[in-house]
Amino acid sequence: MLESKLKTSRSYKNKDTIINVRDTKIGGSHFAFIAGPCAIENQDQYYTTAKSVISCGANIIRGSVFKPRTNPHSFQGLGRSGLKLIKDLSEDLDVVVETEVMDPRDVKITSKYVDILRVGTRNMQNYDLLKELSKINNPIILKRGMCATIDEWLQSAEYLMFNGNENIILCERGIRTFETELRNTLDLGVITILKSKTHLPIIIDPSHATGKRELVLPMSKASIVSGANGLMIEVHNCPNKALCDGKQSLTLDDFEHLSKKIKPLLDYENKTI
Amino acid sequence: MLESKLKTSRSYKNKDTIINVRDTKIGGSHFAFIAGPCAIENQDQYYTTAKSVISCGANIIRGSVFKPRTNPHSFQGLGRSGLKLIKDLSEDLDVVVETEVMDPRDVKITSKYVDILRVGTRNMQNYDLLKELSKINNPIILKRGMCATIDEWLQSAEYLMFNGNENIILCERGIRTFETELRNTLDLGVITILKSKTHLPIIIDPSHATGKRELVLPMSKASIVSGANGLMIEVHNCPNKALCDGKQSLTLDDFEHLSKKIKPLLDYENKTI
Amino acid sequence: MLESKLKTSRSYKNKDTIINVRDTKIGGSHFAFIAGPCAIENQDQYYTTAKSVISCGANIIRGSVFKPRTNPHSFQGLGRSGLKLIKDLSEDLDVVVETEVMDPRDVKITSKYVDILRVGTRNMQNYDLLKELSKINNPIILKRGMCATIDEWLQSAEYLMFNGNENIILCERGIRTFETELRNTLDLGVITILKSKTHLPIIIDPSHATGKRELVLPMSKASIVSGANGLMIEVHNCPNKALCDGKQSLTLDDFEHLSKKIKPLLDYENKTI
Amino acid sequence: MLESKLKTSRSYKNKDTIINVRDTKIGGSHFAFIAGPCAIENQDQYYTTAKSVISCGANIIRGSVFKPRTNPHSFQGLGRSGLKLIKDLSEDLDVVVETEVMDPRDVKITSKYVDILRVGTRNMQNYDLLKELSKINNPIILKRGMCATIDEWLQSAEYLMFNGNENIILCERGIRTFETELRNTLDLGVITILKSKTHLPIIIDPSHATGKRELVLPMSKASIVSGANGLMIEVHNCPNKALCDGKQSLTLDDFEHLSKKIKPLLDYENKTI
Repeated sequence: MLESKLKTSRSYKNKDTIINVRDTKIGGSHFAFIAGPCAIENQDQYYTTAKSVISCGANIIRGSVFKPRTNPHSFQGLGRSGLKLIKDLSEDLDVVVETEVMDPRDVKITSKYVDILRVGTRNMQNYDLLKELSKINNPIILKRGMCATIDEWLQSAEYLMFNGNENIILCERGIRTFETELRNTLDLGVITILKSKTHLPIIIDPSHATGKRELVLPMSKASIVSGANGLMIEVHNCPNKALCDGKQSLTLDDFEHLSKKIKPLLDYENKTI
Repeated sequence: MLESKLKTSRSYKNKDTIINVRDTKIGGSHFAFIAGPCAIENQDQYYTTAKSVISCGANIIRGSVFKPRTNPHSFQGLGRSGLKLIKDLSEDLDVVVETEVMDPRDVKITSKYVDILRVGTRNMQNYDLLKELSKINNPIILKRGMCATIDEWLQSAEYLMFNGNENIILCERGIRTFETELRNTLDLGVITILKSKTHLPIIIDPSHATGKRELVLPMSKASIVSGANGLMIEVHNCPNKALCDGKQSLTLDDFEHLSKKIKPLLDYENKTI
Repeated sequence: MLESKLKTSRSYKNKDTIINVRDTKIGGSHFAFIAGPCAIENQDQYYTTAKSVISCGANIIRGSVFKPRTNPHSFQGLGRSGLKLIKDLSEDLDVVVETEVMDPRDVKITSKYVDILRVGTRNMQNYDLLKELSKINNPIILKRGMCATIDEWLQSAEYLMFNGNENIILCERGIRTFETELRNTLDLGVITILKSKTHLPIIIDPSHATGKRELVLPMSKASIVSGANGLMIEVHNCPNKALCDGKQSLTLDDFEHLSKKIKPLLDYENKTI
Repeated sequence: MLESKLKTSRSYKNKDTIINVRDTKIGGSHFAFIAGPCAIENQDQYYTTAKSVISCGANIIRGSVFKPRTNPHSFQGLGRSGLKLIKDLSEDLDVVVETEVMDPRDVKITSKYVDILRVGTRNMQNYDLLKELSKINNPIILKRGMCATIDEWLQSAEYLMFNGNENIILCERGIRTFETELRNTLDLGVITILKSKTHLPIIIDPSHATGKRELVLPMSKASIVSGANGLMIEVHNCPNKALCDGKQSLTLDDFEHLSKKIKPLLDYENKTI
């Protein structure tokens, strides 16, 4: 089809999309500073982590209850019962929340409990899930498939926008290459390319992109000056006891340090959280 | 977990799995010669193609009604209404049939209409789909993700076997590499590696692996002498008018030629269709 | 430049190039069955291996004296002093020999001692070496760079043909991908693609492509039925004591077995050694 | 061999290497701001570009006379006759200069005319070139091979350090991946990984990494905050007329803009040019 007809394209809509979710804005100069645990394990872990990252400036809390695990015997998340926990935290702490959804049957209920829904890298081309998500109005974070081209990624966004939802956030999380020292190779050049093609905001997940805690700060800094509209960072109140992805999760102190280090760079780029 | 506990592993079950579906066997020396259109477009196209490939020796008919298309505006398949067509053909021509399933909500109904269910490359890590499929008893073809490691692929098979279904068929369909001359790079070394790790049968899809008609014959031949337990080949009665993947579909004559060319190689490998 | 001007192209020369080196032919229906040790370690190892593989039908003996080793502290080969050994064996056993050359300064002397010169994967774009090689008349085996596209590979062949030498043999040896179970991913589809673009013969090195002995036989068989004009196989009289690449070297018995197994496939493809 | 014995390793030398070439320092807090044309085409182009970038703060002038071109019919550089031009500019403008060397036979003479020698991506594993370079004392920039792992890269640096030369600068220039929108994928995570493994300085070439002018500024900024010890940027006084790589070359004005934009980031990282 003609590119001018694609809802993701700059020719369809030239101005940067700015998403407004309960007065938190994402896009343009509004920076999404998303943080929280990989998986929500229990109330204490979730609340402790959330309170701490909020005090450091995070404006959206991440946390998964549906977990896509490579190994069927690994911890699979709290499931639907965790949705209420997310809703409670959102109200108790008056903060925007997000979570991953994997199953088309979970879309509707999740959309009622959680502000922003996330599509993980393994599901970027799970078209029945995308179609179900196109029917709701919540903002959606669409992670890049681990070997998806930019064009394939935008076409998946096109699925999400099919029925008029324009609140789509693209999230780069590293691509799979021959290099095995890091979990993935973070592709920061993609930001400039995407900015020329689409009006949608682009955020970066340096935690999954690298798989190593010590890479999260440098890659966060690099993301900001590459033009990212936000960061999504895994933080855990006790990473050594995390049920998943402990090695890439920041401690509460690490995150506080990061939040201070990135401030001058946000100023430099005229971005505000 | 211990590898010896993995149901896919040779240490769990040493002998080659042989799947029996309505007296058609797959695995060991029993060769699955799967052919048919990429997408089922209508009764005439499906029946014409099926009859022709059966007359050339094909023992399983492929054909999708749920189509995973990169572009949301492309033909998406006949959907559930196509399932009855598959069932009818299966009975009319007395042949084993297979089709792709993408949505967990379609698993149960599809399992009633179609002998063998297929998981496509984009859904290899769609865990909710895999979990739903683990509840049925139909044989399942699990395609390799386009950038999945062998270990990730076997772990997805592990999901399918979680509840006791042992009728899993692995299908290599090319991996994504820097080389762009072909759609994907067919990884035939994977057969020997898999044979050492798992008792499950392994088949090859040379059509999607290459994306080019002229590659299907040489890669089919290469697959057989590499030890494959079967082939899955796209055939269309009129490829130039195909609603998808026309460039990689064989004509009926091409397929007849292929079926003759591979016979000496099947004999050489002591495989029988 | 215009493709029709490229000396490697079918439009420049439509008919398959057949190389004649001391009455051994390579190309068209003439199959190059190249075998021998990775590195020539000493006279006994070289002669013992060569005699054995010749008795099994090998018509060209491989063996390196200049070794490109990743680690500077690894065995670097016998160097120039090994060239006489190659020449002697060539005369004593009346067989065509080949060896790798890495340094432009070694080209002229090597061309006097050895029939066929080989450019390794790391040097496919070592243009000063290619230019020096373009000045001699010996046949040259040009291995594909480990992440070279087909177009880049052919352009390197173009360098070799710059001054009129048309005796170039392309050698696929696996490409680097994300998959780490094997050393490289053997790209057999490349043969059909190359046959449509170039008149030059194409051979396969299954030893370096896989890095594992047990893969050499299946990948050799697959290469033949994919249309290869030859094989280059590493054989060692005592692989466990090999100074390099022992894990991928066949024993003398392995090679005898392979030579018997491939005969029916050569007949099937109307290829003769 | 034991890692502790590797001359590139932190266990061999813990302190950051700081290279001093004619009072210009590279490493630690000393930032190498390298700029100039891809190929030196003539005196006017070279001098005009060099004067302009020096006035913007560049402290090392790049420029190749030996050009590694994929196509044998492309402009191959001025060759040895260009070396005097480099030497003259170095003296006339009192600035440090660098150039690529490809042929072992050119090493000695180039080392007399030019301060810093560069090994290009295609020659990272051209071991005879590396061995020849290990015999001189000039600082050497070692570019990463386009599909080289970190370990292979460091082992090539080990070749250069074999005879005691410790003035080695690693240069990341993008790796080859499935993504084709950009020429390569810039791997910035490599900086943190390398800093933990080696004491050698690491610089980034955003021009070759992306192949597109508009990416050079964002990737330069990202490189600095990722911890790079320098940048190497292609600049041309008239990119549209450049004999090679015009699309990725900055204009003189672009470079002036870049030099201003990066200053606050160098301050932020406590780096000085």
